[in-house]
Amino acid sequence: MAEPYELDRDDRLYFDDFHVGQRFTSATHVIDAAQIKAFARRFDPQPFHLDEEAPKGTLFGGLVASGWHTAAITMRLQVESGLPIADGIVGIGGEMSWPRPTRPGDILRVVSDVEEVTPSRSRPDRGVIRVRSETRNQRNEVVQILNAKLFVPRRISAAAG
Amino acid sequence: MAEPYELDRDDRLYFDDFHVGQRFTSATHVIDAAQIKAFARRFDPQPFHLDEEAPKGTLFGGLVASGWHTAAITMRLQVESGLPIADGIVGIGGEMSWPRPTRPGDILRVVSDVEEVTPSRSRPDRGVIRVRSETRNQRNEVVQILNAKLFVPRRISAAAG
Repeated sequence: MAEPYELDRDDRLYFDDFHVGQRFTSATHVIDAAQIKAFARRFDPQPFHLDEEAPKGTLFGGLVASGWHTAAITMRLQVESGLPIADGIVGIGGEMSWPRPTRPGDILRVVSDVEEVTPSRSRPDRGVIRVRSETRNQRNEVVQILNAKLFVPRRISAAAG
Repeated sequence: MAEPYELDRDDRLYFDDFHVGQRFTSATHVIDAAQIKAFARRFDPQPFHLDEEAPKGTLFGGLVASGWHTAAITMRLQVESGLPIADGIVGIGGEMSWPRPTRPGDILRVVSDVEEVTPSRSRPDRGVIRVRSETRNQRNEVVQILNAKLFVPRRISAAAG
């Protein structure tokens, strides 16, 4: 992957800049077998993530990436090019699913839709946005859906600080 | 981390072996600043995951692990010592949250409770279990909750196969 780049502060978005219906699309990342196996050795050492031969005749039919690897690549794409949130992407939690596996050679990108924008009642300096992010491959098939709640600072807090 | 170990096949659990109320507790993993920064450089390059000094005075007050790093360590603990599912741990999806951050020096373990056991209507060779897994630190504080749906093969399919 390329080194992360820093957006100018002026390009980053505050809570006040988000609205329901906004869409953000990330750059792409090409995943290969070496990346899949390296992640699996460290975090998900199961045969279908480690070995091209092992999964033949199983549910997967070939080497597939750990779902957590797909999630981690999704985060990298969001941080670098997907969601330019002021002060960074800080998730509270969310729902996720992996409708189909990520395979070697897949070209992943993330398409994010802002679905809710909620000011904090207790903290005037921030709000929460709910973003549905689909991680899609080169055939536009969805390999991960993440419906996440994210903390976002309000512009007033930056001005005051 | 230690190398993964393989359970004897006889020690692994099939769908028929699971019931609501079962609890599984994993081994532990100690996370340090070097691991936190290495994961962040690759997958979540934000200042509060990369630098001890940057997060002072922010929401976090110090270096914290990416939530996806906590999720990945949780998976490793589950694969090696947490959930001995026959044919491996294959998730369909779930809900997750990070009630508090993971910090350098934290000793993580995963406590998993089986909350639902559902045979597949269309596929007699498998079922789905819903497992709530809390990742806890050395003070028994919860740093991640993952409520996941997992595919589990039925024992009959192993006998037939």
